[in-house]
Amino acid sequence: MGRHKLFLDKLARSCQIRNLLLRQAMAECLGTLILVMFGCGAVAQLVLSDGTHGMFLTVNFAFGFAAILGILVCGQVSGGHLNPAVTFALCLLGRERWRKFPIYFLFQTIGAFFGAAIIFSMYFDALIKHPGSFNVTGLNATAGIFATYPGEHLTLLNGFFDQMIGTAALIVCILAIVDPYNNPIPQGLEAFTVGFVVLVIGLSMGFNSGYAVNPARDFGPRLFTAMAGWGGEVFTAGNGWFLVPIFAPFFGSFIGAFIYQLMVGFHTEGEARDQKIAIEESVRLTNVTTNDKTKDNAKEIH
Amino acid sequence: MGRHKLFLDKLARSCQIRNLLLRQAMAECLGTLILVMFGCGAVAQLVLSDGTHGMFLTVNFAFGFAAILGILVCGQVSGGHLNPAVTFALCLLGRERWRKFPIYFLFQTIGAFFGAAIIFSMYFDALIKHPGSFNVTGLNATAGIFATYPGEHLTLLNGFFDQMIGTAALIVCILAIVDPYNNPIPQGLEAFTVGFVVLVIGLSMGFNSGYAVNPARDFGPRLFTAMAGWGGEVFTAGNGWFLVPIFAPFFGSFIGAFIYQLMVGFHTEGEARDQKIAIEESVRLTNVTTNDKTKDNAKEIH
Amino acid sequence: MGRHKLFLDKLARSCQIRNLLLRQAMAECLGTLILVMFGCGAVAQLVLSDGTHGMFLTVNFAFGFAAILGILVCGQVSGGHLNPAVTFALCLLGRERWRKFPIYFLFQTIGAFFGAAIIFSMYFDALIKHPGSFNVTGLNATAGIFATYPGEHLTLLNGFFDQMIGTAALIVCILAIVDPYNNPIPQGLEAFTVGFVVLVIGLSMGFNSGYAVNPARDFGPRLFTAMAGWGGEVFTAGNGWFLVPIFAPFFGSFIGAFIYQLMVGFHTEGEARDQKIAIEESVRLTNVTTNDKTKDNAKEIH
Amino acid sequence: MGRHKLFLDKLARSCQIRNLLLRQAMAECLGTLILVMFGCGAVAQLVLSDGTHGMFLTVNFAFGFAAILGILVCGQVSGGHLNPAVTFALCLLGRERWRKFPIYFLFQTIGAFFGAAIIFSMYFDALIKHPGSFNVTGLNATAGIFATYPGEHLTLLNGFFDQMIGTAALIVCILAIVDPYNNPIPQGLEAFTVGFVVLVIGLSMGFNSGYAVNPARDFGPRLFTAMAGWGGEVFTAGNGWFLVPIFAPFFGSFIGAFIYQLMVGFHTEGEARDQKIAIEESVRLTNVTTNDKTKDNAKEIH
Repeated sequence: MGRHKLFLDKLARSCQIRNLLLRQAMAECLGTLILVMFGCGAVAQLVLSDGTHGMFLTVNFAFGFAAILGILVCGQVSGGHLNPAVTFALCLLGRERWRKFPIYFLFQTIGAFFGAAIIFSMYFDALIKHPGSFNVTGLNATAGIFATYPGEHLTLLNGFFDQMIGTAALIVCILAIVDPYNNPIPQGLEAFTVGFVVLVIGLSMGFNSGYAVNPARDFGPRLFTAMAGWGGEVFTAGNGWFLVPIFAPFFGSFIGAFIYQLMVGFHTEGEARDQKIAIEESVRLTNVTTNDKTKDNAKEIH
Repeated sequence: MGRHKLFLDKLARSCQIRNLLLRQAMAECLGTLILVMFGCGAVAQLVLSDGTHGMFLTVNFAFGFAAILGILVCGQVSGGHLNPAVTFALCLLGRERWRKFPIYFLFQTIGAFFGAAIIFSMYFDALIKHPGSFNVTGLNATAGIFATYPGEHLTLLNGFFDQMIGTAALIVCILAIVDPYNNPIPQGLEAFTVGFVVLVIGLSMGFNSGYAVNPARDFGPRLFTAMAGWGGEVFTAGNGWFLVPIFAPFFGSFIGAFIYQLMVGFHTEGEARDQKIAIEESVRLTNVTTNDKTKDNAKEIH
Repeated sequence: MGRHKLFLDKLARSCQIRNLLLRQAMAECLGTLILVMFGCGAVAQLVLSDGTHGMFLTVNFAFGFAAILGILVCGQVSGGHLNPAVTFALCLLGRERWRKFPIYFLFQTIGAFFGAAIIFSMYFDALIKHPGSFNVTGLNATAGIFATYPGEHLTLLNGFFDQMIGTAALIVCILAIVDPYNNPIPQGLEAFTVGFVVLVIGLSMGFNSGYAVNPARDFGPRLFTAMAGWGGEVFTAGNGWFLVPIFAPFFGSFIGAFIYQLMVGFHTEGEARDQKIAIEESVRLTNVTTNDKTKDNAKEIH
Repeated sequence: MGRHKLFLDKLARSCQIRNLLLRQAMAECLGTLILVMFGCGAVAQLVLSDGTHGMFLTVNFAFGFAAILGILVCGQVSGGHLNPAVTFALCLLGRERWRKFPIYFLFQTIGAFFGAAIIFSMYFDALIKHPGSFNVTGLNATAGIFATYPGEHLTLLNGFFDQMIGTAALIVCILAIVDPYNNPIPQGLEAFTVGFVVLVIGLSMGFNSGYAVNPARDFGPRLFTAMAGWGGEVFTAGNGWFLVPIFAPFFGSFIGAFIYQLMVGFHTEGEARDQKIAIEESVRLTNVTTNDKTKDNAKEIH
């Protein structure tokens, strides 16, 4: 046992990274990997089993619980954003530094890329035996396992609106959950609540294009499919649809942050600020009085 | 960063509303918007995808989780009623002031109206390509996405009873959850429990007419559909069914409050009151004794 | 407002019941009513909608969440048993007095009776328009909405074993959840955990005969159906099946309690007792030593 | 009551086991029994009802909730591993002693064996009336109720990878949940979170071969089926597939532990160690200073 412990200790010391931002980025990477691995895994199970081992509801559950687990794995280290649109909203509100944004975006995309790669390897046999293996469009298309593609009924404009509203809804709920002045959730349960938000977005906003609402979750796996055999069609399908889940979420993020602040956030924050000012005022007044008294006392003494 | 923070601070100050009731009403509005957006969104997904992206269970889950999120978003500010029948029950029991009732009712209805509007815009493409777009009745009717309509088997009388019982069940459970003398739920988890109540009502009382049990959730979206293209038929369908989910819930609210108080509430409250009286009595007695002693002491001294 | 409050106060005082056992029995009654109302409501929704508004999974969810809500409504007052087999197990282990058992059994059965009555009234229109309304057996039978009937493949012996094992599993889990020496669950979440037990029993032990595992939940609604139009056949169907869910759960309760205590309970209790004895011993020894010292001191002084 | 209590006390004393490891092993045995009983029970319900009382989703829910309940029943006594691969990972990281590993493995397998036996007895009537009773392979095979068998599309190599990745994902999440330096979950809710991990693995990694990811859960029931009538074919089916869920999970356990430590664990641990060292340093420095001062004082005095 002693030698085992010693070895573990040595290993731990040699692997330890002391740069905080790098550690946070790696944690985000692992968290997003878990989100995409479990989420896209559920889509793979649904598509490749032709519906015998899944349905749209199981995909919704999987993405919801995958978000919970992804946040739990990295939340204490990096905040557990798993989504550049969330990082963007928090930067916008001045709660995270802007320089975190590109780093997080990059590592979240890398994590999503490898999450897709794991599912690809895991279901490789099932994929190559599936009638539509490596098809991007059509009845048996499998590209939708990894990245999102618009439904046939959807125009690009409505698709942009869809991703914007979905992300705005996500951001309103997340801001309520992490609002320091409006936080009714017991510590440690935020992850579960965010998971329920992801679940409910899937239940009610998933029909148009599969609710990416996350640039990293969509672009990382799409890049992987482009490299793994589906080819450049993953970028051209749907008149360049791939740009929508990259850009629309940031607009949604902005709108969501603005609506939450306007309807709830500014007022609760303001109330807290008013109270703080009132307390400071009263302390100042007390000090003044005390000082005056001290002066008086001083006078009396002299 | 400094300029960004400064701007945010300035914006926050200029947007802050100091009137408490208005702030509460706005929070209720946002909460009900979220409830209806996610809930009706799930119905839209089920109806417009012809069942490939949803089933009745997903609607139940969506309304349950939507209630959780709606309450979390506004609960700390306004109490998170999201439902005029809940506000009514709390006024009835003297826990909220009656003047709150019309204001909350109005803003809850406004929130529900805009929640329906968001879903309408989001699924606009899918709606206009759906065979029964803008039909109120018939096989492919879409009006049921937003407001409730009675099943073919249902008479108005049974429908009234259905809405009454559904609301009474909701109120009994909510009163148990928020009862200060019978509250076993860890703080912050009330929202989740109320969400489960909404879920289970959908699982077991949803077949007759779609479990509105909430005048605002039904009337707001119905008004929206009347304006958005479905026309006046939304009010005349089912022999004026639209009045049932407006009035029956208040009767149910009254019955639920009465049953809970009769079976549990009055006794737990009474016990707490008895204990308080006993303590006050003993304090008074102690005071009397002390006073007597003081008098005795005073006598002894003189 | 003043007059309203005064009236409420007067009403509360005149309705208050001070007898503890009666209050507990009434709370059990309301809790079991909620369990059966939501649970059987889900079966009604499944059967009467011919599967469009439910499936076996929704029944499982409904019974699980109904158990959660039933326990939350009455748990602080009566313990939230909702099931004579649970009361029996707790009496068996000396945690409740035996005289509670018949009272709880009676009021739980009354609650289940009225829960069934509410669902009957609520779905009356749907029931009389259903092809098999008031049939006890056959393809379109509706008696199974309220009470359980054995599957065609099931012999009475296997059915007895089924109910016994189901109840034993329930009791093992409940005893673990409420074990004072083995209780890892945050206070207030016991209800949720018990609900999950009920849910999982339905998911895995529901095929044979519909997992009553509760004499009151089965007999109360069965009595109601006998009176409401299904007639005496509800007792004769399945060669007197109705006796199985009344008696088998108590055997299961005994077995479950024994297994849990043998495998976990006796040892954790024993450890706690050993520690207590050790502490008492050391206190006694300390006292002896102190006394000896006191004697020594006394000797020195004299 | 007195005699009842006395008898219970006597029974408790005579049954109490004082050997800690044996008690832990028995608790693991009961926990794994519950996991397999509920989990395989759900598969039995799905298979034997030909899908009327279950679907793949209900099996996922059942295994997830069964894991929660199994952990709750034994967690405080034995840690609630229920899975030799989990015990292996904790031994690997030096958090459990290696000698626990074979004992836990043995008792987990025994528990799984008896869990399968209970389900076999419970569904005996349904099983012998099922067309494919006691078939290991083919359309109506029932051996899959108890142990896992590979899908037709799966090669042994991909199956090995599937089990390895599934276990690695399980271990990464479990290590995050129990990490003392990265643990955001309220005490007592770990069981629920682990249950969600098992659920989500089933939702997204269950298509290839049924996600055993647990040598005991697979081998115990397989041994039972070999003895109960399915015969030696349970070991020969799928070119000796039965070895895969025994060995692959340990490789996955190793990989999962390594990845979690590399991406998150080593850094959070390291940070905690750095802080501890810094504190010790400052204490030592303070002591030195104090000593110096003492010397100075001593000098001054002399």
